[in-house]
Amino acid sequence: MPEKIVIALGGNALQSGNSAPTAEAQLEVVRRTAQYIAEISRRGYEMAIVHGNGPQVGRILLASETAKEVVPPMPFDVCGAMSQGYIGYHIQQALKYALSARNRNYPVVSLTTQVVVDRSDPAFQNPTKPIGGFCTEEEARRLEQEKGYVMKEDSGRGWRRVVASPQPRRIVEIGAVRLLWDHAIVITCGGGGVPVVENPDGTLEGVAAVIDKDYAAELLAEQVDADALLILTEVEKVAINFGKPNQQDLNRLSLAEAARYAEAGQFGAGSMLPKVEAAMRFVRANPGKRAIITSLDKAVDALDGKTGTIITFA
Amino acid sequence: MPEKIVIALGGNALQSGNSAPTAEAQLEVVRRTAQYIAEISRRGYEMAIVHGNGPQVGRILLASETAKEVVPPMPFDVCGAMSQGYIGYHIQQALKYALSARNRNYPVVSLTTQVVVDRSDPAFQNPTKPIGGFCTEEEARRLEQEKGYVMKEDSGRGWRRVVASPQPRRIVEIGAVRLLWDHAIVITCGGGGVPVVENPDGTLEGVAAVIDKDYAAELLAEQVDADALLILTEVEKVAINFGKPNQQDLNRLSLAEAARYAEAGQFGAGSMLPKVEAAMRFVRANPGKRAIITSLDKAVDALDGKTGTIITFA
Repeated sequence: MPEKIVIALGGNALQSGNSAPTAEAQLEVVRRTAQYIAEISRRGYEMAIVHGNGPQVGRILLASETAKEVVPPMPFDVCGAMSQGYIGYHIQQALKYALSARNRNYPVVSLTTQVVVDRSDPAFQNPTKPIGGFCTEEEARRLEQEKGYVMKEDSGRGWRRVVASPQPRRIVEIGAVRLLWDHAIVITCGGGGVPVVENPDGTLEGVAAVIDKDYAAELLAEQVDADALLILTEVEKVAINFGKPNQQDLNRLSLAEAARYAEAGQFGAGSMLPKVEAAMRFVRANPGKRAIITSLDKAVDALDGKTGTIITFA
Repeated sequence: MPEKIVIALGGNALQSGNSAPTAEAQLEVVRRTAQYIAEISRRGYEMAIVHGNGPQVGRILLASETAKEVVPPMPFDVCGAMSQGYIGYHIQQALKYALSARNRNYPVVSLTTQVVVDRSDPAFQNPTKPIGGFCTEEEARRLEQEKGYVMKEDSGRGWRRVVASPQPRRIVEIGAVRLLWDHAIVITCGGGGVPVVENPDGTLEGVAAVIDKDYAAELLAEQVDADALLILTEVEKVAINFGKPNQQDLNRLSLAEAARYAEAGQFGAGSMLPKVEAAMRFVRANPGKRAIITSLDKAVDALDGKTGTIITFA
């Protein structure tokens, strides 16, 4: 039986820090990323891919806001769905080619994906994720009044809208993901999924929020009964005392150790912490399985147990 | 055995002519559309949905061009993929609800879809589809020089970029559509699909072009071996002498009759002609099957043979 894995792709898999933030430059990065993913597929793993969308959805929103006198601005949930189409298109185009270069004629498909969040999620009481462009305080106050936005001053650079980052509760399109799983590489829950809340009458309604893509990938891994959750980021291994002389890279991490290090503030809140927490959730729910945090170029070796940080229950 | 149908949704299924061109107003229209589609599903038909994207992709492109000093503008193929995410999200959200209101717990999913066109398609020699905003002649000349765009003067309103409308040759994601077909309602080939050409090395490459969504729906219907192609538009029946005192609505149309009327210029080039031609292609390739052209609200009756224009081989 082939192993089933869910891969969470970090921002560096889509965009390079030292090239222009254009769609064309992104496609170049995605083509390199696709080579690594295709190699994982060639080794016989079945997989689904969850990608981030932070910079991309930010640019879509900013373009929409900038052009608002000419074209009605897009709600943020729609911007998220647009970013799924955009990034999914690039990944599936590049991955299809990388697979066929390895004689794997395998469907690759991206699904527009909604993820249900709770309206009562405490994150909605304390929005923290800045989105869109900067504005003056006066403009910020006006937006608060007129649109009900929550605006915050951002490190002296101006005022910016902030939205909540609630927990993913349910993947609306999970049925389709399960149908495709055995026969295709499925790109889903892009950017953590388009966040929607469920109304009492059963309708779903898009909300302006950002779901962490590592948490969405973890939920997906649980719901498709994956054997492993593979979180790809910029470093080969999770470290403690990161960036200090006594930095120590970790080969293995038990749930208890991970919890202790997290408690001690060893992992950056906006960067490594959600990855470690997603890994912890996965092994807590699946004590016999493993989560792996490593870099894209080490993914195959990490799946073989040769590198990366492997997180297990015990 | 349930009948399998491919539904091509016209622009009026997504957006109303007398409301603001906002995402919010579109969602209202899509919710109404979803009720009709859900009703077709309740009757037991299996289906895939192909939607148009003209006004939506136009606005995405226009926002991108307007904001170009702030955010790098998006290539047109990426705008198309974004419109698939946007429209697919709305349809799947609304349709899922309309289905569950009928006790049908059925997956609805939209796939980012690439459609291969030939680089040698004669349409590339004569681009006709205007996209994006208007500009001055001077700006137009500069864009022709700098970007290789083809610019044309548009009815005295200014200069505008035009792109080709080539024929769809192959649906890249057809494998995934086939996998999903029996178990889900699949939204695919949105806006006719993101047009791509195949390079000699096997890579796919997005091109700035517009594939007619009725032709894409027809290709899809052939490739999934659908029993019927259902093209939904603003009128209940195809007519000859349209808008004249001797207008005659057509209940049935054979391939030969359709060809004769088309030849005689009975169908508008940008409106009814591609629908009739798509219908003709389908019955020519499948002499035992039928294509139907009707309006959204008459779709169920038309499938029952009670109204609409039914196009058959003989």
